[in-house]
Amino acid sequence: MPSEFQIIGNLAKRLRRRGARGVVTGIGDDAAVLRVGARDDVVVTTDTMVEGQHFRRAWFSWPDVGWRLAAVNLSDLAAMNATPRFALISLAVPETVTARVIEEIERGAARHLARYGAIVVGGNLTATDGPLVCDMTLIGTCRRGKAWKRHARRGDAIVVAGVLGAAAAGVAVLLGRARPARRDPLVRAYLAPVPLLEVAAALRGSRSIRGAIDVSDGLSSDLIHMGEASGLGCDVEAAALPVPPAVRAFCRRRKRDAVQWALDGGEDYALVLSVSPRRAADVCRRIRSTGAKASIVGRFTARAGTYRLIDADGRARAFKPGGWDHFAR
Amino acid sequence: MPSEFQIIGNLAKRLRRRGARGVVTGIGDDAAVLRVGARDDVVVTTDTMVEGQHFRRAWFSWPDVGWRLAAVNLSDLAAMNATPRFALISLAVPETVTARVIEEIERGAARHLARYGAIVVGGNLTATDGPLVCDMTLIGTCRRGKAWKRHARRGDAIVVAGVLGAAAAGVAVLLGRARPARRDPLVRAYLAPVPLLEVAAALRGSRSIRGAIDVSDGLSSDLIHMGEASGLGCDVEAAALPVPPAVRAFCRRRKRDAVQWALDGGEDYALVLSVSPRRAADVCRRIRSTGAKASIVGRFTARAGTYRLIDADGRARAFKPGGWDHFAR
Repeated sequence: MPSEFQIIGNLAKRLRRRGARGVVTGIGDDAAVLRVGARDDVVVTTDTMVEGQHFRRAWFSWPDVGWRLAAVNLSDLAAMNATPRFALISLAVPETVTARVIEEIERGAARHLARYGAIVVGGNLTATDGPLVCDMTLIGTCRRGKAWKRHARRGDAIVVAGVLGAAAAGVAVLLGRARPARRDPLVRAYLAPVPLLEVAAALRGSRSIRGAIDVSDGLSSDLIHMGEASGLGCDVEAAALPVPPAVRAFCRRRKRDAVQWALDGGEDYALVLSVSPRRAADVCRRIRSTGAKASIVGRFTARAGTYRLIDADGRARAFKPGGWDHFAR
Repeated sequence: MPSEFQIIGNLAKRLRRRGARGVVTGIGDDAAVLRVGARDDVVVTTDTMVEGQHFRRAWFSWPDVGWRLAAVNLSDLAAMNATPRFALISLAVPETVTARVIEEIERGAARHLARYGAIVVGGNLTATDGPLVCDMTLIGTCRRGKAWKRHARRGDAIVVAGVLGAAAAGVAVLLGRARPARRDPLVRAYLAPVPLLEVAAALRGSRSIRGAIDVSDGLSSDLIHMGEASGLGCDVEAAALPVPPAVRAFCRRRKRDAVQWALDGGEDYALVLSVSPRRAADVCRRIRSTGAKASIVGRFTARAGTYRLIDADGRARAFKPGGWDHFAR
């Protein structure tokens, strides 16, 4: 095993060769020094993937672990309307993880970040007796005061960019099989979610967007997060939820309710937007121009704390936060 | 156990009450939004503490775990000449760690950060089957182009602010006892190291400082880091190393070489500075004005790759990187 310093040194060499706008000092000092525009805000997020909790080793290639770690952080910046710039990666690695594996994880992450113009500027490597823990902090920028908060406005349309339920179906497929089926599109939706940064870029500068969140916990939970942040409720049209045909087929086979699956699935990294109702159709067109699916799935209401699913016959029922809670033991 | 959302919600509430300059959006959104001065660079570092690797549960109170997590990151910013501003904390917690413990860790970290004007703006909570993993990313600012790199200059004096060997002795004391002795000054040096931000502030704007590093791995390793970054070597005077009397006494009892102990100990979070030789005495005076110890321990030489310890009789011997390497198995 090469030493910690050698591994970091190798990474630093490879990353320095790339260079990057705004990096004054990258890997290899006590801290990274970054320069952002004088008219920019700094937007920063962090997310962790723990082996056994968020992923199983058999499901992923090692670069895919890094790719997904980048994806979940990139998605948070998409939901803030920020441009990703600089990343730090901290790995706590068990003895079974070799230097080559560490480099593969870092490479997967660096490649995904590079697709959106971001670069690794630092991080940390440590040993652990436990499972592999991958932690990324991602720093982006946006024009001052232009970040999208989780706020919704009363009467606003709820617009979803992307699809729902596919990643959760992918996990179910993986759980049901002895061998991983990495090419299954549902499995891909879980292994390699696409952060909707192009959607955010297409909507940049639009005054019609009053707030946004990305669907990591599940649409139900994430809508409730927005409602709570704004003192509102919401009505969601079941028929309008963007459930891909493959997820509907999966739900038929498994005798699951596709709507509930889409509502509670999570990990899809779709974007949920609070949009001025008169501009919702136009916003959908702009989203579709990037190749992403766009759907008006409901509206935010003045009934604070009341979150309703409306079925095809107009019947309403309340929904609760679904999805994954790490501490619901 | 409260849910992940409840724990985060409680933290967010407590932290929001404090408010902070530069925080546009703190905890409770997809990402934090921060505003820094137009003439500032952003300086960012990350460090991890893994139970069983960096600390044992029996040694620490829970707030002390957070306090030390903050300390090691604060020290990195001191070594860059940056002012700490914003922190993100990611915890991967085993089932034995309760919500109250999580809050105690966060509180310990937040208190230490607050002492230097910094605030927690985000983070992540996740479950793990393994040991507790505490990860902090700390963001600071410094005037554009004024960050201290690891560079040294040929002929520069090596100035050490702080003392050496105490933290390593503290670990040895802890390892040798059934019960933790949290009041032992050596143990305190390990449990609650003091980041030398006041030293950095006292030297801010001085052109005599050509580079800096903090002693986390060990003076030997950290001097070699500086030498490698600058294509230089160094000569260190054994007699000049700031070894506290308690460490000398410890070494006598344990039949250890106090000089080697100070050279390889690590975790002291002293600062090593490359200082213009004509200004070294003045720099030491400014360091002492903060209450910290200051010592001229040697100089950087043109002999790239040659790192020498000079004993009281003028005999030189080469030294190698000592201290802790997580991957030296």
